[in-house]
Amino acid sequence: DVARSRRASGYPVARSWRRARQLVPDAKVALISVAGHYAADVARQALDDGCHVMMFSDNVSVEAEVELKLAARRRGLIVMGPDCGTSVIGGVPLAFANRMPKGPIAVIGASGTGIQEICSQIAARGAGITHAIGLGGRDLSAAVGGISALTAIDFVAADAASRVVVFVSKPPAPEVKARVLAALKLMQRPVVALFLGDRQAVRRDGNVHFAQTLDGAAALAVDLANVDSQASHQPSASGLGICGLYTGGTLAAEAAQLLADALGLHADETHAEGYMLRSGGHRVIDLGDDLYTRGRPHPMIDPTLRNEMIRALADEPTYGVLLLDVVLGYGANADPAGVTARAVAEMRAGRGGAPITVIATLTGTDQDPQDRASQAAKLEEAGIVIAESTRTAVELALRLVQPPVAGIGAPPPLLAAPPAIVNIGLRGFADELQAGGTNVVHYLWEPIAGGNQRLQRLVAALQ
Amino acid sequence: DVARSRRASGYPVARSWRRARQLVPDAKVALISVAGHYAADVARQALDDGCHVMMFSDNVSVEAEVELKLAARRRGLIVMGPDCGTSVIGGVPLAFANRMPKGPIAVIGASGTGIQEICSQIAARGAGITHAIGLGGRDLSAAVGGISALTAIDFVAADAASRVVVFVSKPPAPEVKARVLAALKLMQRPVVALFLGDRQAVRRDGNVHFAQTLDGAAALAVDLANVDSQASHQPSASGLGICGLYTGGTLAAEAAQLLADALGLHADETHAEGYMLRSGGHRVIDLGDDLYTRGRPHPMIDPTLRNEMIRALADEPTYGVLLLDVVLGYGANADPAGVTARAVAEMRAGRGGAPITVIATLTGTDQDPQDRASQAAKLEEAGIVIAESTRTAVELALRLVQPPVAGIGAPPPLLAAPPAIVNIGLRGFADELQAGGTNVVHYLWEPIAGGNQRLQRLVAALQ
Repeated sequence: DVARSRRASGYPVARSWRRARQLVPDAKVALISVAGHYAADVARQALDDGCHVMMFSDNVSVEAEVELKLAARRRGLIVMGPDCGTSVIGGVPLAFANRMPKGPIAVIGASGTGIQEICSQIAARGAGITHAIGLGGRDLSAAVGGISALTAIDFVAADAASRVVVFVSKPPAPEVKARVLAALKLMQRPVVALFLGDRQAVRRDGNVHFAQTLDGAAALAVDLANVDSQASHQPSASGLGICGLYTGGTLAAEAAQLLADALGLHADETHAEGYMLRSGGHRVIDLGDDLYTRGRPHPMIDPTLRNEMIRALADEPTYGVLLLDVVLGYGANADPAGVTARAVAEMRAGRGGAPITVIATLTGTDQDPQDRASQAAKLEEAGIVIAESTRTAVELALRLVQPPVAGIGAPPPLLAAPPAIVNIGLRGFADELQAGGTNVVHYLWEPIAGGNQRLQRLVAALQ
Repeated sequence: DVARSRRASGYPVARSWRRARQLVPDAKVALISVAGHYAADVARQALDDGCHVMMFSDNVSVEAEVELKLAARRRGLIVMGPDCGTSVIGGVPLAFANRMPKGPIAVIGASGTGIQEICSQIAARGAGITHAIGLGGRDLSAAVGGISALTAIDFVAADAASRVVVFVSKPPAPEVKARVLAALKLMQRPVVALFLGDRQAVRRDGNVHFAQTLDGAAALAVDLANVDSQASHQPSASGLGICGLYTGGTLAAEAAQLLADALGLHADETHAEGYMLRSGGHRVIDLGDDLYTRGRPHPMIDPTLRNEMIRALADEPTYGVLLLDVVLGYGANADPAGVTARAVAEMRAGRGGAPITVIATLTGTDQDPQDRASQAAKLEEAGIVIAESTRTAVELALRLVQPPVAGIGAPPPLLAAPPAIVNIGLRGFADELQAGGTNVVHYLWEPIAGGNQRLQRLVAALQ
């Protein structure tokens, strides 16, 4: 019947774990959906044989979960579950998962539909994922302590392709949350953390951004992935300063605030000489300040002063990023992009090759007199990066002056390539894996003595 | 030279305020950009003649600002400024402003480039504004007390076309912030408040949503405007309950949390019987809870139970909105939208005409086996509204059960139609207004005695 079963399904079927591994020797994950009572034993067998485990089964004791997860961690493996409904490893959708476009975002979550919704929202914004690693609903409880969360974070931290990370769960136990946050802060790349229902006053803690909703987490992750992609086309400015020269006071204030939040600095409340930020080797100046406009037209009208300050950066190699606003509309200069582009070109010519990335936001509409599209083209032609908002401009600047050291070396085996799977339990999962082109073997597992518990106790005693 | 000046400019030019009003009798706004020393007197003249004032001039004393603003408020007028660089009234861009597409969002702000950036971000998302009312940077200071902010809020509250409001400023003086927030909370429509740099832990207070960045404020306002537009195609459910029936636990948790936040209720922490929320006449149930899955397939696979609960709403007229998740992907039902649509149709047939709006989120990607586009089409054909996220689904549900009583009666005169303008000071502003098709008269204002202060004192003494 094994042969017949195989012919019907189109994938290999085995009567024993050993036979299953012979049929698919490079299987890396055991997808277990047998009744909870038996799931732990099956998982042990898989772990002992060097396989990661995704445990769809629920009704598994906390004690067994902890024992399995510790055993896995000792072997450099991970147990996703129990009661883990969703994972996507190397594009392979496990159990309840969506077929996702590939992309630079890794999702780690102790929530099945949370992972699915975030992944779907990422796809809806034209982005994709490397992996989505489910943890099981109890992983972040005090009893389990986040064992698999920490393992998943280690794996993703070593995966260079995962450029941005989203971590989603219901609010963990406080001590577990602290442990997970500490690990996320060491990930050397942007992280979006969503502890659903947790009213986080702080929006950011170093590389970790706190979201409040599933779609908000996805939108933020996609923004950060776009910034990362933009950064990859720019010279590094590692350790250099960020200089912001703004014609608009509110834009300067926002840039200064966001930089200060990210770098743990203090924005300049006094605005002396128009400085909104002057610390940590970075500065942001509001050129609309009275100091610069007394007896002189506003810099939105007359760019002379700002252009002088742009050119002066030729002699300031300690600055590696220049932030600018270009404001269109009535009352403003007829060609703000043109005049700015020329000043930037002159500045660069005088820097003796020392690179500087210039990032501009372009405030205005398609109906404005300066024709937004042509203004954008002028900036791009001058090698000026256009950011969609002050927020993403600041993210790009930060990314350049603090480049992440993402995953040097090979990714962990589990994440290196689409894994082959040993499926144990619900046959449908194997059917769908095979339909999706995944190398799968179905292990026709049955409980010892056909599930007769009296006989099982006898066998156990004999063993 | 007046005639010659007119011929050159194409718009009427006058030597006196009286003559200017004769040339453009329906002028509603005086745009003042004379030197600060004289601006208050010119403003007084305009207010005395029933004209609103936009004061671009700065270097105007606080005392004069307060006196002018109180005088204006007594007359049902507003003083935008001093140092007010940006307003757009009825599509007319005043001073530094962008030409904006029309739409349902009103912006009120004590920050020029803040208004410009938010308006531009709104336009970038395909939406538009009714008005953008500048207040001047000092309006929200303790000394001025938010006089024009309160007037602007009154005006917009009476303007039915302004369906969503964005309020932007740097953090006001505490007592002024409280006053402004109290007025915003009475506006009977969604408000997005951005006090730039203010770390607001609470994300929402009744109808007021708190944003953190300029682009975040714009994105939220556009979301709320889209919800408002969706709601206009749905029957009112005023005072009725919201029922959420979810297959995904995290989606249920998010819906319950957002409803609780908005309605000042408490989400059900115990999740007894899968209830995530059970108060205020509303309920949200997680049908993936063990109670509903013991001995029965998960509702994502087998919709039978949820369909029964959907049909049961035929006999529950106290519910006017049904929230659902439809989850695609491997492991899920082959046609979740189809089975759900049928149950909804049966439910509606049994409601004896009592309307109910059904709102679904559709979790999945275009690559999923169920073909997302065709699933969406099935929901829409069944009259089920598809929301982009749980967050916007909840906003639509709230909008229907708590319909705003937006601006009955005619809008205030200033906002009723594109205003004609008396321009006093910078000639360029008049040129641009005229180029943009606005009815403008330029008042060739000059200081008394040509600005000779000794002579001015003499004239004043004689008067």
